[in-house]
Order: sequence, then C-alpha cells, then structure tokens
Amino acid sequence: MQEITEPKDRLLLGPGPSNVNPRVIRAMTMPLMGYLDPTFLGVMGDVVELLRTAFRTKNDFTLALSGTGTSGMEASLINILESGDTVVVAINGVFGLRIADIAGRCGANVVTVDAGWGSPIDIGLVKQALENLDKVKLVAAVHVETSTGVVQPMQPLAELAHAKGALFLADAVTSLGGVDVRIDDWGIDICYSATQKCVGSPPGMSPITLSPNAVEAMRSRQNKVQSFYLDLQLLEKYWLTDHVYHHTASMSMIYGLREALLMLVEEGLEDRFARHSLNAQALKAGLRELGMGVLAEEEFQAPQLTAALIPEGLDEAKVRRALLNEYGIEIGGGLGSLAGKVWRIGLMGESSKSSHVLNLLQALESLLARENYKFDVGSSLSAAQKVFAS
Amino acid sequence: MQEITEPKDRLLLGPGPSNVNPRVIRAMTMPLMGYLDPTFLGVMGDVVELLRTAFRTKNDFTLALSGTGTSGMEASLINILESGDTVVVAINGVFGLRIADIAGRCGANVVTVDAGWGSPIDIGLVKQALENLDKVKLVAAVHVETSTGVVQPMQPLAELAHAKGALFLADAVTSLGGVDVRIDDWGIDICYSATQKCVGSPPGMSPITLSPNAVEAMRSRQNKVQSFYLDLQLLEKYWLTDHVYHHTASMSMIYGLREALLMLVEEGLEDRFARHSLNAQALKAGLRELGMGVLAEEEFQAPQLTAALIPEGLDEAKVRRALLNEYGIEIGGGLGSLAGKVWRIGLMGESSKSSHVLNLLQALESLLARENYKFDVGSSLSAAQKVFAS
Repeated sequence: MQEITEPKDRLLLGPGPSNVNPRVIRAMTMPLMGYLDPTFLGVMGDVVELLRTAFRTKNDFTLALSGTGTSGMEASLINILESGDTVVVAINGVFGLRIADIAGRCGANVVTVDAGWGSPIDIGLVKQALENLDKVKLVAAVHVETSTGVVQPMQPLAELAHAKGALFLADAVTSLGGVDVRIDDWGIDICYSATQKCVGSPPGMSPITLSPNAVEAMRSRQNKVQSFYLDLQLLEKYWLTDHVYHHTASMSMIYGLREALLMLVEEGLEDRFARHSLNAQALKAGLRELGMGVLAEEEFQAPQLTAALIPEGLDEAKVRRALLNEYGIEIGGGLGSLAGKVWRIGLMGESSKSSHVLNLLQALESLLARENYKFDVGSSLSAAQKVFAS
Repeated sequence: MQEITEPKDRLLLGPGPSNVNPRVIRAMTMPLMGYLDPTFLGVMGDVVELLRTAFRTKNDFTLALSGTGTSGMEASLINILESGDTVVVAINGVFGLRIADIAGRCGANVVTVDAGWGSPIDIGLVKQALENLDKVKLVAAVHVETSTGVVQPMQPLAELAHAKGALFLADAVTSLGGVDVRIDDWGIDICYSATQKCVGSPPGMSPITLSPNAVEAMRSRQNKVQSFYLDLQLLEKYWLTDHVYHHTASMSMIYGLREALLMLVEEGLEDRFARHSLNAQALKAGLRELGMGVLAEEEFQAPQLTAALIPEGLDEAKVRRALLNEYGIEIGGGLGSLAGKVWRIGLMGESSKSSHVLNLLQALESLLARENYKFDVGSSLSAAQKVFAS
C-alpha cells in the first residue's frame, strides 16, 4: 500500500476552517441518497428553513451552493452584473479586492472606494462615489473582512445603495453565525456565506440568499449568466421550485451543514453572538498583557477574528510554526501588506470556547518566554480569566 | 427542537451517487486542518499522485476541484475557450448538450455533431465537420454518456482533433474507475471526472487533468478566465506549485476522495474494470429474462450504466417508486426524450456488486409479478447467477 500523510489533530484558531462539533461529523456519515430522492429533498428543505433563520430573512430565494464561500461571492456577482453595468465596491482588505476582481471578470465598470487595511469604509466616500456616477446596479461590501478583523456596519451602506436605485451585496462569509446578520431589517439584497467559519460545518458549501428585488434583477438580465454551474436560476429550480436536476448535490456536506445550523438554532442567535463576544474580549485582554494590541479600532473589531499586532522584533513566523508543530494550534499570518505585522486569531463557531482562549494564551506565553520576550508570566491567563469570571 | 427529515438507507443503483465504502466515510471524519497546513498539503499531494494513477497520466496538471462534475466540465471549457473560438461538440445525450451550453456561454462558435440518444457518435461526421471548418480550438466528447449508457471510443476522436491542430476534451464523469481512461495513450488533452460514480466517494469534487498542450493553451489566452473560482491557473498555484491561498479546500471531501482512490489502487484498475464488466453482464442476462433489452448496441454498452428498455404498457414510474419505497433501491428514470422509455441502472464503484445485482432482480421480479407482467419467476436470478458462476 502507498505511503500516505496522516491528518493531525489541530486546534483551529486561524481564519478558518474552524473546528467542528462531533455531531456535525456524525451527521456527515449518514447514508447517501439520490439527488432527487423525496427524502433527500426533505433534508434540503430543512436546510433552506434553517438558513432563513440564520440569515434572519423571509427570502424565498435561500439555498446553499455546492462550492466554498468564494463560489458564493462569484455566484452573487455574475448573476446580477452584466457587461457595462456599474458596481461600487468598498475595499478594505483581501475580500473586497476579490469582489472587485470578479466584478471585473463580468465586464462590469468597477468603481472602488478604498480604506486602509484595518480601517472601516468611510460612508461619506461611498456617498460621494455614488453621487458622481450616473447609473449604479450594485454596491458591494464585506461585513467582516477576514484579512483584517474589521466589522463594517451594513445598514448605512444598504441605505445609500437603495437611495441610488442600486442593489446592495454583503459578504457574510466570516460574519454569519458569529455576529448579527439581518438581511431583511438592514435591506441586504444579496448575501452569501461559508460553512467553515462561524456556521460550524466543514468547508465546501456556500449559503446564499437573494431579496425579491435581487431575484427580479437576475430574471430581467439581457444575457445568459457566464456560468452554468453557478446559474442561480437553474439552482432555484433544483433547490426550491420544480426540483429539476442541475447537478448532483453533495449529500454529506448538506447533512453536516444542516446539523451545524440545528446547533446554531438550539444555542440561539443572541447567546451565540454573546459567546463569540465574550471569548474575543478575554483573548484581547490576554493579548494586551503580552503587549499586543489589535489592528482595528475597538468599535470595528469583529469578535470572531482578531488581527493582533505583532510586537517589533519578534520572529512571528517562528512562533507561529512552533504553535502548530509543538502545540497543534493554528493561527493565521497576515495577508498582503499585513504579512509579518499581524496574527489573525479566529474564535469562530465551535472554535470559540473559553478553554481554547486559555490554551492559546498558555502556548503563546511559553513560546514568547523561550524567545526572551519580556512580559509577566501568567498575566495573560489571569487577565482572560477576569473577563470570563466577570 | 425543529422536526427534521431523517435520511434513509438506500441501495444506490441509479446514475449516481453510488454507495460509498465505510472506509471512505471513516476517512471523512478525520480532523480538519488549515488549508495551508503542511500536513494537509501532504494529503493534497497524495490525491494528486493517486489521480495520476487513476487517469493513467504523467500530467503535471492534475488536481481536484471543489465542486461537482459539472464544475469540472465548466472549468475545462472556460479556461480554454475564448470568445470567437470554434469548438466541435459531439452530442448524443444530456451531457454533450451541457458541454455545448457551457461553450456557448463562453462566447465560442459551437459546432455540434449529433447522434441519436443511445447511439455512438459517427466518427465520419466529426471528420467532415472538421474539414468544413477553418480553425478549431477544441473537440469535445463524452466518454460514457450517463443519460444513455453509451461508451464512446475516445482515441479516434482525439486523433481527428490533433490532425486539425485542435485540443481534445473528454468527459470522464461516469467512466473514470469503471472503464479504462488512458489520458496519455489516447491523447486526451483535457479530462474531468466526478467522485460519486465509479471513483467511490461522495459527490462534491471533480478530478481534472490537463496535458502540457492544454496548459500551454490556457496560459496563452488573451483574456482573463470568466470565473475566479474555477480559474485553473490560480488553482494550479494552490494545489501544485507555490501553495498560494485561493479558496478554503474542503478537507473532509479530500480525505474521502483520497481513501476511495487508495481503494481503487489496491483493487487494481484491471480487476476493477473486470468487476464492473462482470456485474453488468449478469444484470443484462437477468433483464433479458424479463424481456428487457438495452438501449445501446452491445459494442457501445457501458458496464457501469445500463439503459434498460422498459416493456410496453408497464407503469414504469410506479415500479420505480415501489423499488425505492418498499425495497430502498434507487434506479434512475430516463432523461429528456428517453423519459418513460428507459431505466438507468448504475453499477458503479462500490455499488457494482454481485449481491446488488441479485437484490435488484429479486425486487424487480416481485414488483413485476404484482403488475401481472408475464415472465418466468426466478429466471432472471438464475440467468445472472450463470454469469457469475461461469
């Protein structure tokens, strides 16, 4: 038999995937069925209902794509945008850039509103950009930027878009299940997420929801969508209306997603957000004792992803490697211009636990001590515990 | 707690998914890791090596997409074809039509060579079509048409394509792992498959391989690929060369695919093809006793998928429903013009077993007897057993 690489047990505290509850893993082992088996269609129906709860929406058009979060981003853009359409993209990190890239591949006229990585988008600049443009089809922004840990308020942007007669798209890949995402209340027309961050199942699917206005825009396009695989009108016929074959859905992933969503509903959205918030506060209190601040201003810090500023002079790659190899803990490095400057520490979904916060701080303290980095040993654990016990 | 639909245990003898070995299910429960974790990159490397064995290729460009077989079809076309390119598509079923649809969405000039559903493609007609055209970028055909059970010889088509200076694309969604697929020997430039048919893992991934000539064509295109998610040059950088982040790979599905490929290698390709062939012969011998012939001519019958002709006057939907509800056995109905005329019986991968053939024939006999359909009770089982014991 061929020699193969054995997967290792990891505490996943990076930008995703996060760890998965054994209930979700067990669900994935349930028997495969035909993609049009009435019982399997029932499972899909459960997922649709649960997603509506997670997204806080009544949108008929709610389903999960057979692809990762990036496939959701792509589906959202290519089904709305046509060649020559104008789209305004707010960019303050990697995923805003990615939206602009994909919109460009649609042949759209892409206008960007940029902010520094780690800063929120300036609403005034978006307003100004919209005023300077004739007709705008879509305004797009990232709710929680995984590259920076910034959470951007979505409602003001949605209002600006609607005032201009444009649709509003929110990337909720990292936000859904970790902070509130209110599709209907905030007026989000197009929203996609992923399964492996705060939702709590393995990577491989992308929940997506479209408002009636977005569905209308999709139906009234002039040209066929570039993609057959991500053609949302065909997917609607499979998931939601006539159950016409489009592709062979990934039963195992759908079972896992359904179980994760059930757990989310059982926990309750508010309790879940409070858990994410508390664990993030404890983490940041601990990091502060180690001399590590946070990239984003406090008001814009996402609880599920903390971009921690690395102290000068520390060999961050060495510490990160040791965390992985000696402690089995994954945290993320910085992307792009933030490489070497921040660590991205995710406390998402099942990975958002007080014990994980303490494990990470303990490992970090031990490794920093070995590097002769100056701090009070034990102080980060104590500071975190003060938050938990408060 | 919300009421949910419980999945049911099924014997999957339809057009896919097929059943999955417990080893594969167990592999899918292995721990998740970061998408750039060196250990996970090792797992991906194993998959690449094993796929080369399954495809019988030395192609550097060999990997698995995070999407189903249709995503492989789409990636293969959109990374090669540009607006205005001419592609010749051989069509004798649903999946040839789908290739033409996607090629059209690329803005390509799509020339089709059609054959009746259930017939093979006439090589002479392809030759003639190529002679009548000026410049052709790609010739595309389906190796095993899942809608008809026809296996089409690939090598003659590849030779015609190359003589015209075109690349040759083969859809191996249903063929890989069930009949021989010789990428290098036959001169196939672009080939994709799926995991849930003869490969033996759940649906959700698409193996793909490109010859050096196809890679060259991809690199020398004028315009960006329409899709970011399926941009093969970005995927190459993640899977094969620099391991640069592109999307969060679906670890669980990759573990399952690797285990299924290990089982394929352990069984041996020749033994695996012989198993598929023997079980198909037994099935057809049994069906013959029930007065049911096969849509395709013998020479072109794919062992993994038999399109059985339904006798006049039989309420096929009723029998198929009873098979599912009373026996837990799924077989497929006909698609398009073959609806009501054929049953598509898959004996693929883990579902290709002598015991499954006998279970199906037993259930069919019982249901047909209830319908007062005339046949010798027990004759189909006996005929199948004669094949197994020969």
